[in-house]
Amino acid sequence: MEYYVDLNSDIGESFGSYKIGLDEEIIKYVTSINLACGYHAGDPLIMDKTCELAQQKGVRIGAHPGYPDLMGFGRRKMDVSPEEARGYFLYQVGALEAFAKAHGTTLQHVKLHGAFYNTACNDEKLANAILDAVEEYNKDLILMVLSGSYIAKEGKKRGLRVAQEVFADRGYNEDGTLVNRKLPGAFVKDPKEALPRVIKMIKEGKVTTADGKEIDIAADSICVHGDNPEALEFVRILKEGLIEEGIKVTSLDEFLGK
Amino acid sequence: MEYYVDLNSDIGESFGSYKIGLDEEIIKYVTSINLACGYHAGDPLIMDKTCELAQQKGVRIGAHPGYPDLMGFGRRKMDVSPEEARGYFLYQVGALEAFAKAHGTTLQHVKLHGAFYNTACNDEKLANAILDAVEEYNKDLILMVLSGSYIAKEGKKRGLRVAQEVFADRGYNEDGTLVNRKLPGAFVKDPKEALPRVIKMIKEGKVTTADGKEIDIAADSICVHGDNPEALEFVRILKEGLIEEGIKVTSLDEFLGK
Amino acid sequence: MEYYVDLNSDIGESFGSYKIGLDEEIIKYVTSINLACGYHAGDPLIMDKTCELAQQKGVRIGAHPGYPDLMGFGRRKMDVSPEEARGYFLYQVGALEAFAKAHGTTLQHVKLHGAFYNTACNDEKLANAILDAVEEYNKDLILMVLSGSYIAKEGKKRGLRVAQEVFADRGYNEDGTLVNRKLPGAFVKDPKEALPRVIKMIKEGKVTTADGKEIDIAADSICVHGDNPEALEFVRILKEGLIEEGIKVTSLDEFLGK
Amino acid sequence: MEYYVDLNSDIGESFGSYKIGLDEEIIKYVTSINLACGYHAGDPLIMDKTCELAQQKGVRIGAHPGYPDLMGFGRRKMDVSPEEARGYFLYQVGALEAFAKAHGTTLQHVKLHGAFYNTACNDEKLANAILDAVEEYNKDLILMVLSGSYIAKEGKKRGLRVAQEVFADRGYNEDGTLVNRKLPGAFVKDPKEALPRVIKMIKEGKVTTADGKEIDIAADSICVHGDNPEALEFVRILKEGLIEEGIKVTSLDEFLGK
Repeated sequence: MEYYVDLNSDIGESFGSYKIGLDEEIIKYVTSINLACGYHAGDPLIMDKTCELAQQKGVRIGAHPGYPDLMGFGRRKMDVSPEEARGYFLYQVGALEAFAKAHGTTLQHVKLHGAFYNTACNDEKLANAILDAVEEYNKDLILMVLSGSYIAKEGKKRGLRVAQEVFADRGYNEDGTLVNRKLPGAFVKDPKEALPRVIKMIKEGKVTTADGKEIDIAADSICVHGDNPEALEFVRILKEGLIEEGIKVTSLDEFLGK
Repeated sequence: MEYYVDLNSDIGESFGSYKIGLDEEIIKYVTSINLACGYHAGDPLIMDKTCELAQQKGVRIGAHPGYPDLMGFGRRKMDVSPEEARGYFLYQVGALEAFAKAHGTTLQHVKLHGAFYNTACNDEKLANAILDAVEEYNKDLILMVLSGSYIAKEGKKRGLRVAQEVFADRGYNEDGTLVNRKLPGAFVKDPKEALPRVIKMIKEGKVTTADGKEIDIAADSICVHGDNPEALEFVRILKEGLIEEGIKVTSLDEFLGK
Repeated sequence: MEYYVDLNSDIGESFGSYKIGLDEEIIKYVTSINLACGYHAGDPLIMDKTCELAQQKGVRIGAHPGYPDLMGFGRRKMDVSPEEARGYFLYQVGALEAFAKAHGTTLQHVKLHGAFYNTACNDEKLANAILDAVEEYNKDLILMVLSGSYIAKEGKKRGLRVAQEVFADRGYNEDGTLVNRKLPGAFVKDPKEALPRVIKMIKEGKVTTADGKEIDIAADSICVHGDNPEALEFVRILKEGLIEEGIKVTSLDEFLGK
Repeated sequence: MEYYVDLNSDIGESFGSYKIGLDEEIIKYVTSINLACGYHAGDPLIMDKTCELAQQKGVRIGAHPGYPDLMGFGRRKMDVSPEEARGYFLYQVGALEAFAKAHGTTLQHVKLHGAFYNTACNDEKLANAILDAVEEYNKDLILMVLSGSYIAKEGKKRGLRVAQEVFADRGYNEDGTLVNRKLPGAFVKDPKEALPRVIKMIKEGKVTTADGKEIDIAADSICVHGDNPEALEFVRILKEGLIEEGIKVTSLDEFLGK
């Protein structure tokens, strides 16, 4: 049996004169990028340049729409209606797709950002507004979501292309949610510990929770970070380990059925 | 010989709780709409709703990208580089196209707004940045520009689909530019005076300037307004007069060669 | 015994080319205005002009700070930290005070707007962040808040100048909160019904709830609206009735002890 | 005879999650800071924290208002009217003054930022709008401007407190303007070369232009930068040299007559 996994990272989060992230480094390791679209981060110049970079590196592009909250980096919960969620989603996805198109490609996927991701993955009304928007915009667009979430299940039920995302550096609760960042067991910082966990997710579809139980988990894509040199080293080790294990690390579009 | 002309109007300029324009009225008369894209006016909810309205009324949709200046409604000149112009253009065109797509259609055209329109129509560097962006994004997208401007000529030279726009309610200078709003002869407010002027533009390709000279002018589309009841009445009379004259009033895509 | 009450209204909510509210009309009736400060509505030109208008009409000026959410008009709940609440408060209060100063006056009061008002009036952490900010900025600045709320009680305990606000056109629950806009009893639309309710609040410190019970309520200021001609007529009748009843309708600063 | 000079630097230019500048380092060397006010850079949290830092370090605070153009960092020329210039000025000055007040101090000065500075220093209409605003807001507020500019002369004529600013690391033209950044002679990068130039400005009121001529120049404050370690080293050497030369390096308020 063949095993596949995608490595994704949030990039293009700079804005105007402000620079964030080691985009040119992390893009060497990942197979898909989630590109900020101007609401919580990113601007047209950065979107343009990052699409060009992705094309050069052969990495697939995804939109990373967030709440309209640059000051809060899209991390603050906002009381957004399903109509607003749909509107913010389409606006940002379309804006990025224009740059992808200008660089001779299309969007592979979309992954919500920050508070938008956290809320829409399990709020039924928001989730369905997003799923409707994907259906109306482009049924082939892959929706990358929290593994095991409501939106993942409902998206699959609708026959959409859903990529279930896992976190290599985070601990899990029994219900498949992430351990709160303030609690013990929230992080798996050592790549040597993270690697076997991820391999188990991919090959067995299981993960051991912070409490020591084993739960089911689907892992189509692993979220990794490029904020600092340690993060890059983590990704390098993870990727090498996956390849050594015989797992094919490639972009979602290569293995996620249409 | 058959004559054709398009009637266009800027709509979708509301924002959040703020309402501007008689969109539901003016859309009954025009054949193409220029829809604000969130930088100088408009927001995702309004873009969504206006695309839906346009589809119901059978009116073709165009993007109306402006400078990132909501406070100044995109009317203030900004010192924008060609790269920024390209970026602002692609971002907004793509954002709107997503809503058009979600409502089962595509963008017919794009027309720059306010200070962006005024500058890019005759600034060679900005004009070429826009033309490059159209070519890279979608060669079939019609670019609506000031009749006789640099961008109009250069766009045609490149083989792009250019719609030359005229103004029914404005006076012209000898060089084809509009008479400054503060000078005498700037406005043609009486629709009975405007109608024969427009007919002459369409049938003879000529317009009489404020100084009484006759100059060449191409008229693919006439810009009209829906700000108030008088503006609507102006459009109604104009449209009826054009149809009586045997001119086919229809959207650009129907008669502008691909 | 003498009775006093202030009439307040939210004004200056226009933005750029967008106009909202009948500011020039409502300002004739009220004694205090709550002026938007650019985050959820309002801009520097409108703040400047409205301060000038207030000075001409002899009306006292208050700041009306909201969340940084122009698209949502500050009506959406946002997950704002106490530090952010303090920052948004000081920023907007100071910005408006500059215009007041330029027009030869000072701020009389501050009243939070929309979701900021709703949250901070009863969220202890936000309420205390706001109270700290008032103390640090200017102990004499009156804080206008929901009558009977946590922030009202805590503000008084600290010795700050607190103005308790009531709503002439809204129904009350037993706990002193307003009846949800979607439920029966939410509105008191007839000014003839509203007037005796308000008089009772002022003279007896009581209001009858939607369920027919009588509860205590303090009424230093009555919130009124200037959105449309009916709203203006409501205010006119209310004000005349209060004056006939011998209640002095005047700005807060005249009767609220320092 | 005693000589005085102020050292000023632009700080507080971070925004939300975005960090710029070595604020905690440069503040050790300068005597006055120009603090961004949220339009081109800065946000309420940063303004609050930076005022606190300035108070700890005994450095005087000035406002640094810019154009409403975060995406362009306030560096792009915008066609702003005198009324808008006045409004943007008062809004930002007031916003920052609130934080200064909350930390027990007042604003010492105001210095326009970027394109706003460049335009308003010599555009008569904008300059007078700013001077009017200073007069109406607070006659004691020091206005820091380009040495020898129209606004400097006109401000002095009006009896306002004007601080004439010079640049230690830039070359000058014969008319007192700075040599264009793209031309030879634009920069004076070696602090050992910059130091005697600055001493001459302060003691003799003269500077040698890029063409070798000597012109008059007034130097109340020297603009320095804290973007990187080299910039900090430049400031350190400059400051030590000035002190060795017997020049008193202190904040403007200490020596600029009221």
